[in-house]
Amino acid sequence: MAAWGCVASLGAARWLCWRAARAAAGLLGRPSRRSYAVGPAQSPPTFGFLLDIDGVLVRGHRVIPAALEAFRRLMNSQGQLRVPVVFVTNAGNSLQHSKAQELSALLGCEVDADQVILSHSPMKLFSEYHEKRMLVSGQGPVVENAQGLGFRNVVTMDELRMAFPLLDMVDLERRLKTTPSPVPLFFKGVLLLGEPVRWETSLQLIMDVLLSNGSPGTGLATPPYPHLPILASNMDLLWMAEAKMPRFGHGTFLLCLETIYQKVTGKELRYEGLMGKPSILTYQYAQDLIRRQAERRGWVAPIRKLYAVGDNPTSDIYGANLFHQYLQKATRDGAPELGAGGPRQQQPSASQSCISILVCTGVYNPSNPQSTEPVLGGEQPPFHGHRDLFFSPGLMEASHVVNDVNEAVQLVFREEGWASE
Amino acid sequence: MAAWGCVASLGAARWLCWRAARAAAGLLGRPSRRSYAVGPAQSPPTFGFLLDIDGVLVRGHRVIPAALEAFRRLMNSQGQLRVPVVFVTNAGNSLQHSKAQELSALLGCEVDADQVILSHSPMKLFSEYHEKRMLVSGQGPVVENAQGLGFRNVVTMDELRMAFPLLDMVDLERRLKTTPSPVPLFFKGVLLLGEPVRWETSLQLIMDVLLSNGSPGTGLATPPYPHLPILASNMDLLWMAEAKMPRFGHGTFLLCLETIYQKVTGKELRYEGLMGKPSILTYQYAQDLIRRQAERRGWVAPIRKLYAVGDNPTSDIYGANLFHQYLQKATRDGAPELGAGGPRQQQPSASQSCISILVCTGVYNPSNPQSTEPVLGGEQPPFHGHRDLFFSPGLMEASHVVNDVNEAVQLVFREEGWASE
Repeated sequence: MAAWGCVASLGAARWLCWRAARAAAGLLGRPSRRSYAVGPAQSPPTFGFLLDIDGVLVRGHRVIPAALEAFRRLMNSQGQLRVPVVFVTNAGNSLQHSKAQELSALLGCEVDADQVILSHSPMKLFSEYHEKRMLVSGQGPVVENAQGLGFRNVVTMDELRMAFPLLDMVDLERRLKTTPSPVPLFFKGVLLLGEPVRWETSLQLIMDVLLSNGSPGTGLATPPYPHLPILASNMDLLWMAEAKMPRFGHGTFLLCLETIYQKVTGKELRYEGLMGKPSILTYQYAQDLIRRQAERRGWVAPIRKLYAVGDNPTSDIYGANLFHQYLQKATRDGAPELGAGGPRQQQPSASQSCISILVCTGVYNPSNPQSTEPVLGGEQPPFHGHRDLFFSPGLMEASHVVNDVNEAVQLVFREEGWASE
Repeated sequence: MAAWGCVASLGAARWLCWRAARAAAGLLGRPSRRSYAVGPAQSPPTFGFLLDIDGVLVRGHRVIPAALEAFRRLMNSQGQLRVPVVFVTNAGNSLQHSKAQELSALLGCEVDADQVILSHSPMKLFSEYHEKRMLVSGQGPVVENAQGLGFRNVVTMDELRMAFPLLDMVDLERRLKTTPSPVPLFFKGVLLLGEPVRWETSLQLIMDVLLSNGSPGTGLATPPYPHLPILASNMDLLWMAEAKMPRFGHGTFLLCLETIYQKVTGKELRYEGLMGKPSILTYQYAQDLIRRQAERRGWVAPIRKLYAVGDNPTSDIYGANLFHQYLQKATRDGAPELGAGGPRQQQPSASQSCISILVCTGVYNPSNPQSTEPVLGGEQPPFHGHRDLFFSPGLMEASHVVNDVNEAVQLVFREEGWASE
């Protein structure tokens, strides 16, 4: 799923993409295929990869050929990765181990479930909510997903509407005639894992839980503020599917919820945690997984540099650059505060930089420029990032623009002195 | 359906309601039951009634006893109304003639379909769209309703999603595998009759029609602005049902649509017509029906005064007062411009005033004050009126507050010199 967001100030990136595409087509001189044998005295890696999935490794259900080449380069002769790698996607309606199996099959490389970061994976860090009763919104395997994240007491929208049949009123034909639950439910928070179906139902029930301070069905005169904690993931407003115009993502659902809350109460909806790219939380989580991966492999040298490869400036590049700023500030001043609530188990940071690399095999593929055009030709396009992000065109400019993930790996190996010429 | 909106500045009204309730209970002295025989030389009426339905004449499916008394007072010995009366409701998911039949049965009085104004009834005036292909949103008998309003070329959301199976993507299990329509559909506008079901589908498809300038499925780089015309009805944000907290109304759906359009395009969604109480359009339409009704009855004297009886300050009272301001300005300066687009068949106005009368048998019944409490106790509650309305607490103050519709009719008759003492 490739988020389709603000493409302002992408002139330079797009030119580089175009240049890279022409280079690939031999128009500017095809880069020679160099060998990449590494000497036996290779020291342990001090860098790791954050790889986006859709548009970088796969398109739909097919692997991008360059990804196979990249993984041959990333693996040693025993088929093990030579550097720590995590896969970072904003998808959230599938299971982590299913995504790992899918990647293993596509890449011909054993991918472990704990190398995969879905948009909601950082919710594992919010352990103080894991035993509390949480209302969960999303579709697909929501309960399994929530349990996989550590939540042991979740209630789905369907369970809530069955327990309180007077709440879900919009659909005249779905109004329930059942008896309200004799046992009241007390919620302690809300989990928004991904876009649900029947938005009117989820929006209404989430509002009921927030305004009633967790006791839907009661008639609280004064709703609490701050409201109950909300953990949300995947703030992509729009994404490109097969249709020629972009489709609604979970960010559109969040936008509706934020707006309704603001209109009804006059106050701003706040997130205890807002994760998925481009949130710092997701990059912190990825950094931590990379550190653990290196530890498991016995690589003692700290991982100082992260390379984030993605196809989407608004999500992958913005996020990597934002995290880079965060790391720079942390190196200088100590760990700064996170905007949208922080996890409860932060690890000390070893990384000092996060380098963004834009590839042209996904949403910003120059051979199909139509899908990447801004909405309003000739005008400054509106900011499609989330309300809690600031609009900073500079953050959408990648450190490097290359054709594909294979070129990205080559570039990194060169930078790190790993690739033989 | 009683809208539940901003209840700021209702202190005075509520006190009067309380006073009226106590009066009814005999605590302040019950008003004596006077006879109301009218002399044979009664001149033709120069005033008419706009009666809200829910909370004024009925509660749920039961008639309010005072309404029966009021109608005995309003009818002559032949069972004919002695003054023009229209019934004005913000409901929109039923048919006009069904509502008339329902009222006839409840009130024991022949109610004609053209005495009933549903929230979308003024769309009859927008005849320039009646032959054009319009996308229609709502639930219940949407096609029948649209046809009843004069639209002869409507396409429903379900028809659109079947014709363009790549558009409706949010619900993973409802994604269509059918072939796109070989015949493109060109829309000329959008009708929003009432809250639909599966909001994500309607929101997405309406956006597709607006951004593609009426050709969903195409990939227009520059969406038009102004966008295609939208006719919308019923802007109630919330309404009170059986649950202790208010439920989402069509205004909440409109709020989502407005916000998504603004976020995606950076521009404001505009309505060609926005109707239902408290819009001036609805009161203009009601005034016109009253004029015609008087003409049919052979009452030659122009109708100079309208009396609007309702239970809801944000909707009934705000609307009546707003229309009164409009009439005053029209009398002084000629017909002023309407804010949200105007109908194409405006009649010259004979009315000079619209008097608001608040009853205590609906949402502001003082015997059940809980349901009327503001959201945020102790603080200035937020404005729940529509974006296109200005927040004017004075407009929510009724000219008169009485117990019930029977007292309202008595009051009017006295004011007009019709009631014998």
